[in-house]
Amino acid sequence: MHEIQVGFGDILKKQLELAGENYELLSSRGVRAFNVMGAIGSGKTTVILKLAEELRRRGIRVGAVAGDVAGDDDFRRFREAGIPAVNINTGDDCHLDAHRVHHALEDLPLEDIDVLFIENVGNLVCPADFPLGTEMDIVVISVTEGDDMVRKHPKIFAQTDMVVINKVDLAEVVGVDPQRILADYRKVNPHGRAILTAAKSGHGIEELLSALGF
Amino acid sequence: MHEIQVGFGDILKKQLELAGENYELLSSRGVRAFNVMGAIGSGKTTVILKLAEELRRRGIRVGAVAGDVAGDDDFRRFREAGIPAVNINTGDDCHLDAHRVHHALEDLPLEDIDVLFIENVGNLVCPADFPLGTEMDIVVISVTEGDDMVRKHPKIFAQTDMVVINKVDLAEVVGVDPQRILADYRKVNPHGRAILTAAKSGHGIEELLSALGF
Repeated sequence: MHEIQVGFGDILKKQLELAGENYELLSSRGVRAFNVMGAIGSGKTTVILKLAEELRRRGIRVGAVAGDVAGDDDFRRFREAGIPAVNINTGDDCHLDAHRVHHALEDLPLEDIDVLFIENVGNLVCPADFPLGTEMDIVVISVTEGDDMVRKHPKIFAQTDMVVINKVDLAEVVGVDPQRILADYRKVNPHGRAILTAAKSGHGIEELLSALGF
Repeated sequence: MHEIQVGFGDILKKQLELAGENYELLSSRGVRAFNVMGAIGSGKTTVILKLAEELRRRGIRVGAVAGDVAGDDDFRRFREAGIPAVNINTGDDCHLDAHRVHHALEDLPLEDIDVLFIENVGNLVCPADFPLGTEMDIVVISVTEGDDMVRKHPKIFAQTDMVVINKVDLAEVVGVDPQRILADYRKVNPHGRAILTAAKSGHGIEELLSALGF
């Protein structure tokens, strides 16, 4: 599930090395890590919180990294849910990178964490180019964004392992057909998994957990 | 309304020069241009289409530039509405820049255009750093994105002249209070204008036009 691409030059090479180191560190500590990407407002934080709730019910310990250009809204939501978390503000950068994540790993109590969710900066462009060293890359999208996001951002959907189509309970209200999004996704990523959720109500969370191997 | 910032080094300096040239060209041809930014799915294209509909009713001729990483969904919507338009695919870039816009201006029949809407790439991070040479910078956001986008992306909101809070008809369904967004916006941009719209139904479009000076 962990795919590495080369050819972007020195910057990406260095990023891949650092991502590899993160991957080794996480593996050696027995931590399964997931890179959760998606546009602002797609519901990344809520999806993670719902997954964490169910995982903790099963005795699995969860940690989180909150990545944002500015602010600590998501970080505070994780902490309020009792999840060990680190906040990364990227300033002008539109993505997390392996170096920043490495420092976050140093600040987390990895010995108390079985599963780490790394919430990336909210957009569908930049995060695609920066591997973090996670076991799996996930994109969360919301039907409220329309039905054209895969056609507009084929790269991130082609590269990632799984797409979560969230807020499907609002599909009718906003007049968007999730099947249209699914059809576009299958074109750019025939082997990727797709899960439909309405995370706020918990719909689809069990299925997503199972798809993540829990 | 056209604010220029310096200090980002050579790249921004060059961009500012090119933006200045675009501004001169547009002014000399009597074209009022607007840089329309916002996350994917915020409703930028629909807002522009509704503005164009009303402007054309008043005998004002509208043109458009559609900026996206990939695809031509927005471009086709403009063309189907009978609007002269140019599509810009940025590839890996998460924003339009003045150079790309300059080439688009060469491809547009500026003599037949009074108002030009330039729809930027859909995210709240990168477009903030690249002036295009427009008269005004506008950010379109949707209540479906949550209420934290200003806190997460203060820079773009501080720099732009106007924020359009769209899809307010869905505010109750998604449990988001537009007044909370407005309060955050006023903190980072006390002098910016804010207009509430539900563009699909045309709600707020008249007020927006008036705020744009029509």
